Amino acid sequence: MSGYLFDNVVIIGVGFVGGSMGLALKRRDLARKVRGIGPNREGLERAMAVGAIDSYTLDLKGGVVTADLVIVATPVGMIVPVVDTIAPFLKRGAVVTDMGSVKSEIAKKCDEIMREGTYFVGGHPMIKSDKTGAESASANAFLRARYIITPTLHTAISALTSVTALVESLGASCELMDPDEHDRTVAIAGHLPHVMSAALLHTFGVSSINLPKLPEMTAASFDDMTRASESSAEYQRDICLTNSAALTAVIDDCIGNMERLKDMIAREDGKGLREFFDRARQIRRESEERKPR
Amino acid sequence: MSGYLFDNVVIIGVGFVGGSMGLALKRRDLARKVRGIGPNREGLERAMAVGAIDSYTLDLKGGVVTADLVIVATPVGMIVPVVDTIAPFLKRGAVVTDMGSVKSEIAKKCDEIMREGTYFVGGHPMIKSDKTGAESASANAFLRARYIITPTLHTAISALTSVTALVESLGASCELMDPDEHDRTVAIAGHLPHVMSAALLHTFGVSSINLPKLPEMTAASFDDMTRASESSAEYQRDICLTNSAALTAVIDDCIGNMERLKDMIAREDGKGLREFFDRARQIRRESEERKPR
Repeated sequence: MSGYLFDNVVIIGVGFVGGSMGLALKRRDLARKVRGIGPNREGLERAMAVGAIDSYTLDLKGGVVTADLVIVATPVGMIVPVVDTIAPFLKRGAVVTDMGSVKSEIAKKCDEIMREGTYFVGGHPMIKSDKTGAESASANAFLRARYIITPTLHTAISALTSVTALVESLGASCELMDPDEHDRTVAIAGHLPHVMSAALLHTFGVSSINLPKLPEMTAASFDDMTRASESSAEYQRDICLTNSAALTAVIDDCIGNMERLKDMIAREDGKGLREFFDRARQIRRESEERKPR
Repeated sequence: MSGYLFDNVVIIGVGFVGGSMGLALKRRDLARKVRGIGPNREGLERAMAVGAIDSYTLDLKGGVVTADLVIVATPVGMIVPVVDTIAPFLKRGAVVTDMGSVKSEIAKKCDEIMREGTYFVGGHPMIKSDKTGAESASANAFLRARYIITPTLHTAISALTSVTALVESLGASCELMDPDEHDRTVAIAGHLPHVMSAALLHTFGVSSINLPKLPEMTAASFDDMTRASESSAEYQRDICLTNSAALTAVIDDCIGNMERLKDMIAREDGKGLREFFDRARQIRRESEERKPR
């Protein structure tokens, strides 16, 4: 092993996140060899050009046979199908981890998929993903970032130790979390804002037909509130489909709160409205205080 | 009139907005005398100290008897009661304008309230109102700002001309708009975001009881989306109560969109979800392109 944390690492999907992982592995001397796998040669060539991978292949099955560690950095909706495809071809002792922003369904399915002697450990690096493509990859993308690892009852301690060692070697802050708790947490902290932003924009779009000055009159709060919709439609579709149960529950809760506000407006309940808005600001400030840094 | 646009101006409510109006009137030599009226001596003394007013009184009725122009710069929920109180004491030819962010109900009620020979013209300066108090007032607060004027069928042309002249003399960009259209426009552009932000925070508040890491894990989109709730609870209560019809309609529409998303999630309609998010982004970009500057 010659001092490397891993001998042969394979990264499946070398966009911004996978490419940054490759660069970090190389620059920090964490892996002897990093191979990229992706759907097209152009993307893989770009990852080669920035030094994120040493070699590449388009062959998903053949590409993983010698891997000690496989990092799945595809869009979240493809993670389970990819793990399902490669599982029979992994060598004994191989560890697979993913970088998806939803964890519960992936953890459950991958636990079922993995063959004896091979291991899956779910992960979610909480880094800004407004960049795309290996050409914007950065070896420091994970530096001081929160990196959630979501072991299950089936997770082997040895595999968990490998993945947490990787995360800490990247300079990230490793945190263990139950996959269900993770998903219910990000459903509110990250996914519900996307749903609300899109809902607001559709209301805006229909209304602007009859309100010609609407686009000119949007306030700062409107811009703030709809920025989430700049994310890719594929990413947002995937979080809806993979985190459906937790997301549906919080959409319902949020609709309930909007109905409560509507009822107070209908009843002209000034005291209730004032308390509702006061409490909202208080919740925001309490949450700000509990943030790291 | 010695070259001034107005001889005696009275500003009722000399916080940041009213104070900025006073400062602009003085610095630009638009008014011979500016008197402030407010509920307490301390606020009025601060407005005197920054030079926003020449004199003040706590007497709402007596304070307006010599006014040529009365500018109501109180919180939006107090505008109609204030106009109702001063109406019998106005001299013939007096013009009253307000600076509230909701216009339809105010325009209708003030048209009814005003006595013969006195005039009401509604206005809404679209300036950032994150500052409070005359001590943060600025003579340039209205410079290049959009300033909506909302005449009705009852508005006298002479009064409308006075108010538009005032607005243009402040360096603002004057725009005429129907009060109902104004309110339906700001219901979406400005008020609905406050409702959604508060609803999201209440969902967050309840959920965080069982999800201890939630406050640490909020994404940028969550912060963006809840910034609107930093506004004062009184302001938000007032826009709910004074713009209730338009706001209720758009809350309903937005809830409908969230239900549509929920249905697509339940049906695992990946194509529909992708189209929904794609369209949302497209609406946002089209709206950005139609913005001034």
